[in-house]
Amino acid sequence: MRSEADLGGRQGRHFRFRNGTMDFNAGWVLGYSQLGGLAPGEVFECFNAIRDGNPDSWVAAFAGMAERQEAAACSQAPAAAARGYLAAAVAARAAWHLIDPANAQAQELHDRLERCFQAFLAATGSRLAAVELNTTVGTLPGYATAPIDAASDAASVWYVVVGGGDTFREDLWFFGGGRALAEGYDVLLVDLPGQGSTPYRGLHFGEATILALRELLVRLRAHRPAARIVLTGFSGGGYFILKALDDPATASIARVEALVASTPVTDIATLLRRGMPAALTSRPHGWRARLLTRVAGRMSPVMATALKKYWWQFGTDDLAELIDLAGQAGVVDVARLDQPLLAIVGESEPTEATRQASEVFADISRRYPASRMVHFAKWTGADAHCQVNNLGLAQDTIMAWLAKVL
Amino acid sequence: MRSEADLGGRQGRHFRFRNGTMDFNAGWVLGYSQLGGLAPGEVFECFNAIRDGNPDSWVAAFAGMAERQEAAACSQAPAAAARGYLAAAVAARAAWHLIDPANAQAQELHDRLERCFQAFLAATGSRLAAVELNTTVGTLPGYATAPIDAASDAASVWYVVVGGGDTFREDLWFFGGGRALAEGYDVLLVDLPGQGSTPYRGLHFGEATILALRELLVRLRAHRPAARIVLTGFSGGGYFILKALDDPATASIARVEALVASTPVTDIATLLRRGMPAALTSRPHGWRARLLTRVAGRMSPVMATALKKYWWQFGTDDLAELIDLAGQAGVVDVARLDQPLLAIVGESEPTEATRQASEVFADISRRYPASRMVHFAKWTGADAHCQVNNLGLAQDTIMAWLAKVL
Repeated sequence: MRSEADLGGRQGRHFRFRNGTMDFNAGWVLGYSQLGGLAPGEVFECFNAIRDGNPDSWVAAFAGMAERQEAAACSQAPAAAARGYLAAAVAARAAWHLIDPANAQAQELHDRLERCFQAFLAATGSRLAAVELNTTVGTLPGYATAPIDAASDAASVWYVVVGGGDTFREDLWFFGGGRALAEGYDVLLVDLPGQGSTPYRGLHFGEATILALRELLVRLRAHRPAARIVLTGFSGGGYFILKALDDPATASIARVEALVASTPVTDIATLLRRGMPAALTSRPHGWRARLLTRVAGRMSPVMATALKKYWWQFGTDDLAELIDLAGQAGVVDVARLDQPLLAIVGESEPTEATRQASEVFADISRRYPASRMVHFAKWTGADAHCQVNNLGLAQDTIMAWLAKVL
Repeated sequence: MRSEADLGGRQGRHFRFRNGTMDFNAGWVLGYSQLGGLAPGEVFECFNAIRDGNPDSWVAAFAGMAERQEAAACSQAPAAAARGYLAAAVAARAAWHLIDPANAQAQELHDRLERCFQAFLAATGSRLAAVELNTTVGTLPGYATAPIDAASDAASVWYVVVGGGDTFREDLWFFGGGRALAEGYDVLLVDLPGQGSTPYRGLHFGEATILALRELLVRLRAHRPAARIVLTGFSGGGYFILKALDDPATASIARVEALVASTPVTDIATLLRRGMPAALTSRPHGWRARLLTRVAGRMSPVMATALKKYWWQFGTDDLAELIDLAGQAGVVDVARLDQPLLAIVGESEPTEATRQASEVFADISRRYPASRMVHFAKWTGADAHCQVNNLGLAQDTIMAWLAKVL
């Protein structure tokens, strides 16, 4: 197995595989073990069965683990089963990192992910429950501590988590949802168009992604005038949340109290163009064409599978069109953002991500001096994209900041 | 770096290194990340700096991490510092896996381990505090939720954790102490003669190890007539706790309510003889002699360093004498054990460990049908020695069993 760079500059260390995309996913799955689900021993039980650079062996290892975990959990009392259900959900989710969505097993793994995660919530008596969120662009899958359209005068904190191009709503539990619950906050986790399983519903990334988020924020506020809304975004979510609020009509009604972004992104098209390896962004643009030529050694089966997933999420196999869709809603007008920001950047992320984050922070912190910018150095283990290798530290940092600004 | 077997059969998978002892330690350190301290990203930050089979590079990587974590934690408010202090303690402890105790840095790392762990306890407002436990064989370092000689009529559960040949009292927090605290139990963690830093006090493994444990149990009960005492033992601790209670005078006074052992050991000398690689147990017995000849390729620097640590703990470099000392208190008389037992065995442990555990279980479960034997299969990730790669699952299992038998 020759080594291959990850499809973006997402981490600065080596976990297990010479294939960069597989190794980033490995570090991500391992990172979850800090918060629940699969333990390091279970993660390496899978890693040991994977052939470097072979996505099918990755899927088989994690799919097998998901099946065993669910079968074992099913036969236990709820308290004992909770760990197993979350482990099964994480394993099913991990398999999805490198599956072709057209594979018949993909839908089955997705169903297992949802079923097991929800069994975990039930077994732990969680306040979080699955919700279907109707919007004008389509119905979105989410989790919430209460229906967002139910009126309440409570002054509770609503902690909203928005992921990026590689998240399911269940991931958002690991990206702060679970921690926010433990802090006593109300929580909303949602898959916007293009995210999670929404392509199964015919929804894709594009302007609809932003429109849906704006609608949800306005409705959340409309029914909860006294709540404090914290809007957090990870990866692409760092663009979606800023873009949602640069619309004056949305911002003035939603009155979001605080923004947390890892990383705050103003110009996602430029970030994608500069962050992806030249091998991907050079012509020919058609991914279908590129996949057909991959046997000539231009990309590994891992990269090919990862691209098929994005193609499914964007509804196009043309990279230029994909980047246009990602940036369809336009560059963020930072001057319109009207709340303090916690900007989080990892040392191992691309220069362009740091540049955009610094720009946003410089602007907002002039108006809101409570804003903070945190650079996670490499030695902290939180240096990777979205802090996936030390989510606990990132969440400690977020909660400490919120305790000051809310 | 050629591969080398671990000095005992302790795990059934591969984490990072071809050197077996280094790889077992790697999986152990990574396993702690599930419970707190170093996150996977921080652990791999160290792993990436280690040369396979080179113990000095291991020590340098973790010692450097410990220093950075403590320095960062010192400058933070207590709530934010807690994570960093525990991370520093874990890193200092990790360095100790492969340090020569005669190395000047060893004492310094030990001091950092204690200082940072205690700063973690203080920062989290833990009920646990460092204690010095006087016994007739010497004063032992421990942690307890209350002085064991303070009388109390409370009917609380005392959860006592005893480690083995490779544990410091701080490790015992990860081997159930921290979890027992979270369950609301009272907790006693102690380094018996030979364990942790006790060789610095001139204390070594041998009959004194058992005598000290017996004394402590009798005194704990004497001051707390209404308490329920749960005695747990890991690795060598699985022998110490059984041996402590096969003395009728001790057992009848201490009235321990439940035993948890991973694994229950009756004949530690035989276990050691059968568990160690033939390369170690074959003549010449003198470790000093063996270390002098290691340059001839008979063992790696990792194995040599690991042996120096045991030599320091036993006060002898003669393997035959060491095994005699380990077994000095004799084989356990199982018929005298008078409480239910949870026997835990991992699939990747030596046959002899399983054999002894099964024998103990068969005997005790006839008298105490609430006894259980749990075999952790490989896929559970809890198959290694002491379940170090899935401590959370082991602790869930223990707590679920205690909820039934107490």
